[in-house]
Amino acid sequence: MAVNAERLAADIARIARCTRSPGAGASRPTFSPAWREACDHVVAEAIAAGCRSSTDAAGNIHLRPAALDPAAPVWLAGSHLDSVPHGGDFDGVVGVVAALECLRAAHDEGRTIPLETIIFAEEEGTTFGLGMLGSRGWVGTLDAAALAGLRNADMENYWEAGARHGAMATRLVAERLDPARYLGFLEAHIEQGPGLWAAEEPLALVTGIAGRRQYAVTLTGVANHAGSTSMQDRRDALAGAAEAISAVESIAGQVGPRVVATVGRLTVQPCAVNVIPAVVTFTIDLRAPSDAEVSRADGLIRAAVMAAAARRRLEAEIEETERLPAVALDAALAERVREAAARQGIAALPETVSGALHDAAILAPFVPTVMLFVASRDGISHNPREFSRTADIAAATRLLAETIRGTPAETH
Amino acid sequence: MAVNAERLAADIARIARCTRSPGAGASRPTFSPAWREACDHVVAEAIAAGCRSSTDAAGNIHLRPAALDPAAPVWLAGSHLDSVPHGGDFDGVVGVVAALECLRAAHDEGRTIPLETIIFAEEEGTTFGLGMLGSRGWVGTLDAAALAGLRNADMENYWEAGARHGAMATRLVAERLDPARYLGFLEAHIEQGPGLWAAEEPLALVTGIAGRRQYAVTLTGVANHAGSTSMQDRRDALAGAAEAISAVESIAGQVGPRVVATVGRLTVQPCAVNVIPAVVTFTIDLRAPSDAEVSRADGLIRAAVMAAAARRRLEAEIEETERLPAVALDAALAERVREAAARQGIAALPETVSGALHDAAILAPFVPTVMLFVASRDGISHNPREFSRTADIAAATRLLAETIRGTPAETH
Repeated sequence: MAVNAERLAADIARIARCTRSPGAGASRPTFSPAWREACDHVVAEAIAAGCRSSTDAAGNIHLRPAALDPAAPVWLAGSHLDSVPHGGDFDGVVGVVAALECLRAAHDEGRTIPLETIIFAEEEGTTFGLGMLGSRGWVGTLDAAALAGLRNADMENYWEAGARHGAMATRLVAERLDPARYLGFLEAHIEQGPGLWAAEEPLALVTGIAGRRQYAVTLTGVANHAGSTSMQDRRDALAGAAEAISAVESIAGQVGPRVVATVGRLTVQPCAVNVIPAVVTFTIDLRAPSDAEVSRADGLIRAAVMAAAARRRLEAEIEETERLPAVALDAALAERVREAAARQGIAALPETVSGALHDAAILAPFVPTVMLFVASRDGISHNPREFSRTADIAAATRLLAETIRGTPAETH
Repeated sequence: MAVNAERLAADIARIARCTRSPGAGASRPTFSPAWREACDHVVAEAIAAGCRSSTDAAGNIHLRPAALDPAAPVWLAGSHLDSVPHGGDFDGVVGVVAALECLRAAHDEGRTIPLETIIFAEEEGTTFGLGMLGSRGWVGTLDAAALAGLRNADMENYWEAGARHGAMATRLVAERLDPARYLGFLEAHIEQGPGLWAAEEPLALVTGIAGRRQYAVTLTGVANHAGSTSMQDRRDALAGAAEAISAVESIAGQVGPRVVATVGRLTVQPCAVNVIPAVVTFTIDLRAPSDAEVSRADGLIRAAVMAAAARRRLEAEIEETERLPAVALDAALAERVREAAARQGIAALPETVSGALHDAAILAPFVPTVMLFVASRDGISHNPREFSRTADIAAATRLLAETIRGTPAETH
């Protein structure tokens, strides 16, 4: 099947123009006119390639060849078109256009492949304050009431904002994902880290999605005069936080090579040049390929925070604000990808675990799922400078097409 | 001379009621009605004790016995009555009422002592954004133009706000401090640190004022995804700042027992739970009893910041935002205080260096100067919970009176 790299590049360029911040990156909030325009481009391309379009009650768009037997299970592939504000042109888009290109390439050759392309609604979480809403709503891990509680910047809730795009709370249960209808789900996505780019590898098989815990930490000491309070008499909340942050950084490396831990937010009170900080709050974001590693890092981080606080007579409060288990992607489907890569002459397909969450993590408990990563230049993402090579995107598209080739459901 | 402790306590209680935040600490910005009311209480008490009041061009109030020979040099004692917002009732007030009480106690006994009480304008720096304005203006280290450039919350400059209280730019040079008119300056002040309180000592002789440098540090890395960027690939500005803050904390202790260093302000960009911090700015406030210690700590801190940055491939910028040399207070006057203490039966008067700046630091290059510290409960200051014992304040007042006793200029 002849994947057309130029057509992929043209899709990406076309979708890049769908932004509410022209010249300053992709700004495509879910259900906005810019997002609609991007979806409409993909829908029009699929229809031109003999597909039908439908939107499920959660707002996800499905594109499948009209000639497919509605009763026979098919492969599912896709990703999302919504973006963070001033994001890049590749995040999400790559997985959608790769799946679209498989449909078009097959259609060019007069074949019907058992593939449904999906555009998930609201993956990023920046429109309604929580991510992967379309996939969570479809699989049933978020119900209609929960989605009704989430509002965008215009103060419309998910159902109000999504109504003109086919989202409908009353149909959500009836239209929930039926796993029997799918052979598996494949999501191509940019890596959003520098690993593949630095290793000069175009793509990788993703065999798992890291587990994640997030914490809000508050250290409370005593504000006092920076000049007249000796070092021994201090209860400096920021000095305690600094020790804890250094510990968080080093614990990640101790626990495992793919464990990452980040202190991303930090605030200081009273925040004056000559006053010893009384209260510091900070967040910790911890991710690891396995739940065992998450647990081990959790224990070490909690102990380090408490020790840093105790040494300075600070009160410490550690609140766990999120816990998502690690997701092992489907072993049989991963093997199928490896076999397809071998057939394509890829000697050693790199394998990795995704530190970032994706719709694939939501689908995985219901449908056999794997991901393909495409190299991101310098790992830069959520940024207008985000970039992936067309050749690498085309390679991922070919591997996707090869993986689903030869399925019993394929018709000629 | 019989110092009246009850009268001192009554002064402090009366001045505490002069606040724009009743029930929430002392809020007495310089030149505000609350500050005026506090000054007026002291002026009225001094006049009742046979003094005359005058205000110099910089806005400082001088109170001296009317019977004194205007040509003969006198002792100067006092402090300030302005406060930080929601401050305590003792900071500054103690030094003013101690000097006032010396005048009253002498007057009660029918004596005229060679002592002028001074109320310095704007010591704290929270009204016009810079501290010790009255003393700096009087000694001439800030000129009229510099004071004209400083504005309060009502956008009045120093001269506009001070005009109705006697401050006058055009007289500033003519009314500058004439050192020949003073035998020396004594400032009693609360310690604002826990040293004396913890050691159960009522007061101490202050023989020096720490030198101070302040810095603004900016560390710049790269914002990236907290999940998909490995620990090795990060350029995390907050992890670098944490290492630098820990180094600042430990360097203070290494350089000397009275060296203190504080990171009081810190901001993070972009400050999101799942984004690696790209830019962190923070301040460093460094103080030490000697300039040699300041220099040594300066070198170590700069090296530690650069090393923490280099390890993470961060850009580092260290800007020195303030440099005040250490001030050695007057050795002969300190000896006079020790002798006075010995006469009062104080076996071992503790001696210390002030980490905080005071008007005494401004006067010291011009007039022989020492300070007396009074114990602060738990070291708490700039806070409504600030407290010092009346007995300790009375002891400082007695030592002040004894120190200046027997001067040739005293008349009977």
